[in-house]
Amino acid sequence: MSDHKDAARVDLDPESSPETMVGLLAGLHPADVALALERVDAETLTRVLLQLDTETAADVLINLEEHTLEDIIGILKAKEIASIAAELESDDATDVIGALEDEKRAEVLSKLEEEDRQAVLDLLQYTDESAGGIMAAELVYVNQHARVDDAIALIREATDEIDDLHNVYVIDRDRRLRGVLPLRALVLAPRGARVADVMEPDVVTVSTDMDQEDVAEVFRKYDLIAIPVVDPDGILVGRITVDDIMDVMHDEAEEDISIMAGTSEEELHEDSALKVSRIRLPWLVIGALGGLGSATVMNHYRFSLEKVLTLAFFVPVITAMGGNVGLQTSTIIVRSMRTERGLAGEAGRRLLKEWRVAITNALILGSTIYLVVGLWFGDWSLAAVVGGSLAAVILVAATLGTVMPFALRRVGVDPAVAQGPFVTTLNDIIGILVYLSLASTFIERLS
Amino acid sequence: MSDHKDAARVDLDPESSPETMVGLLAGLHPADVALALERVDAETLTRVLLQLDTETAADVLINLEEHTLEDIIGILKAKEIASIAAELESDDATDVIGALEDEKRAEVLSKLEEEDRQAVLDLLQYTDESAGGIMAAELVYVNQHARVDDAIALIREATDEIDDLHNVYVIDRDRRLRGVLPLRALVLAPRGARVADVMEPDVVTVSTDMDQEDVAEVFRKYDLIAIPVVDPDGILVGRITVDDIMDVMHDEAEEDISIMAGTSEEELHEDSALKVSRIRLPWLVIGALGGLGSATVMNHYRFSLEKVLTLAFFVPVITAMGGNVGLQTSTIIVRSMRTERGLAGEAGRRLLKEWRVAITNALILGSTIYLVVGLWFGDWSLAAVVGGSLAAVILVAATLGTVMPFALRRVGVDPAVAQGPFVTTLNDIIGILVYLSLASTFIERLS
Repeated sequence: MSDHKDAARVDLDPESSPETMVGLLAGLHPADVALALERVDAETLTRVLLQLDTETAADVLINLEEHTLEDIIGILKAKEIASIAAELESDDATDVIGALEDEKRAEVLSKLEEEDRQAVLDLLQYTDESAGGIMAAELVYVNQHARVDDAIALIREATDEIDDLHNVYVIDRDRRLRGVLPLRALVLAPRGARVADVMEPDVVTVSTDMDQEDVAEVFRKYDLIAIPVVDPDGILVGRITVDDIMDVMHDEAEEDISIMAGTSEEELHEDSALKVSRIRLPWLVIGALGGLGSATVMNHYRFSLEKVLTLAFFVPVITAMGGNVGLQTSTIIVRSMRTERGLAGEAGRRLLKEWRVAITNALILGSTIYLVVGLWFGDWSLAAVVGGSLAAVILVAATLGTVMPFALRRVGVDPAVAQGPFVTTLNDIIGILVYLSLASTFIERLS
Repeated sequence: MSDHKDAARVDLDPESSPETMVGLLAGLHPADVALALERVDAETLTRVLLQLDTETAADVLINLEEHTLEDIIGILKAKEIASIAAELESDDATDVIGALEDEKRAEVLSKLEEEDRQAVLDLLQYTDESAGGIMAAELVYVNQHARVDDAIALIREATDEIDDLHNVYVIDRDRRLRGVLPLRALVLAPRGARVADVMEPDVVTVSTDMDQEDVAEVFRKYDLIAIPVVDPDGILVGRITVDDIMDVMHDEAEEDISIMAGTSEEELHEDSALKVSRIRLPWLVIGALGGLGSATVMNHYRFSLEKVLTLAFFVPVITAMGGNVGLQTSTIIVRSMRTERGLAGEAGRRLLKEWRVAITNALILGSTIYLVVGLWFGDWSLAAVVGGSLAAVILVAATLGTVMPFALRRVGVDPAVAQGPFVTTLNDIIGILVYLSLASTFIERLS
């Protein structure tokens, strides 16, 4: 028995020999072996893998980070990859083989047994982030007229092939799904019972083309540990297990946060400053272009700013407020689109709600800033322009934050992009434009 | 059999009678009943619940959103809550009872059977977001000297009590965990075998005080569907199942995004504009105060700005860049702290890496802006001040973005706060300060 904290940490000396490393890693869980090996260079890691028995090597390989895995399979020979892939379940084998370049992929496929090759070729058809793309083809299923004994015999046969078996699926003679036999039912049922009598007939299924994020929602909603995948004709074609769903949830959360931050999780694994810089620069360039846009707007209103320099002092308040309101709004809109809970649905109703909130905040913050600026500079016309503009900018940012996610979704772009630097930058420019155009309209009243 | 999309949607007319609703909802999965009822007011929802049989009512109740659940248990009588809680597993019962006010909580507890009451009282001791706080006390365990038959008999007894049973735990006479019997092993083992001979002796466990986010990482790393929880003496006290872990992962991701956006998922369920406004205002006030701080800085450098108004035009570039660089940096630092992968660990090494990236970006963006401003305004001294300041601001923002998460962690605050509006606002002020102080130093060179 091992507590997580004790087991997890083996600090490998990257200079030691592969043999020494294999010794240090013996007996560890493959996930821990993979974690320890992440700190070793790809060449050494590959040599360590080749010293392990093939089954362990396979388990370690699929526990590596994606970028490390890609490095390793670039080094391994086609024959070595094929023998490792033969030990993997079809979904993992497909991930490995799918990451290869065309020529090497064909070579690896040619070295697989017919059945394995066909499973991988089938799975390679589906888009990466769909139910088909994450499902495994290995299934234990019985005909609805079979007995519990038959089901148990099939589980025994599948011992080597399937690691995480939770259910036996019950099908008719057209391989259409009729029910499910959880292991618990099999433990408790008399061995001679007909499976149709002990199965659960109500099964939640997903179709091969469902987006992986929606599949994850189905798992979470119904508290599932596995789900059968059916094709458009209702034919059972695969299963997805909860371990893959946890990875989906993790990846999708990372992706959302990366979009918001204008970066990418990739760079966690990147040591080269140049490469990290290349990941981050595009977003910074957007920000810089937006800043130059703001400068252009301010240059356009140069006359007003020369007359009343104090106007310029409040540009940062205006941009900060536009950015924050826009981000709050778009985040809530994107979230409610995802969960389909709360006030879901149509842009119009959401916009009305967001306007009510924005008007409240605009009144409170606008009048506060009006008072602060008035008392500070003793210039109540200036105060009115700043406070009024701030209120206007809040309304505009709320509108943009609501409309952008719907607009992005309509043109087939991930609405989450509306939470990223692009929209914040747009808000900056529009905010300054609103502010200075209002200010210049009332400029004759300003001292 | 039901495809998710067919089953999920029942649109209830909020005006119809509870009896009609009960009819429409008959046969649906409790999670779908809960989803449909989210659109109904709390009074009606409570009346619908009371018309369902207690077991269904219990399943529906725990599938409601947290805020709806709180409304409902505020309306239900103590006796009604007690009979629903009696149908729940201890972790869910604890969530329900823990959400009650003190007096009502005591009343509900007094109406529970002794065993249930004790389980809830035990679980209430643990902090909400720890392994103890999310575990269930119901366990099926056998002594290591028992036989497979005994284990199966215990599973049969637990049928009513435990919904998601995946493992039978094997203990010694001090209730210390010795191994685990997955259902699959029980299906395949001869009925007369000793459990010690068929169990898996290597079990990953977590302790009651482990943070729920760390527990989720353990699940994801080892691909678990359930984990036993042990107290500091190694005594088996509970179990956590993967359905709760999916909720943890979802909630933690929402929390991170909410922190970044300066809002809260709560508002998804809030119809009142005033209440939503109250959730968002604190972050906007921080932004407004920061903006006033920036105004103060600009006012301080009024003389320089009067002399060279064009300086003011580039304030938005400076703040946008400081904000974006700070957010990119803090996001990557917080992520690498979480996963403990990539370059983990000490602030010093991370800072060196971030500086290398920042210097690269500062050189590229600084010289680009230098060229743009120089060509645009034909004033190369101004261009040098803007480009140089931009480079300096990038370095400062990268430093702040790296140091803040470590500093926050040291004082016991969630490092993710460094990705929120507070730090971006701080970056704005510091950026303008750096920019204008550099500019005023070189002001005599500017036209």
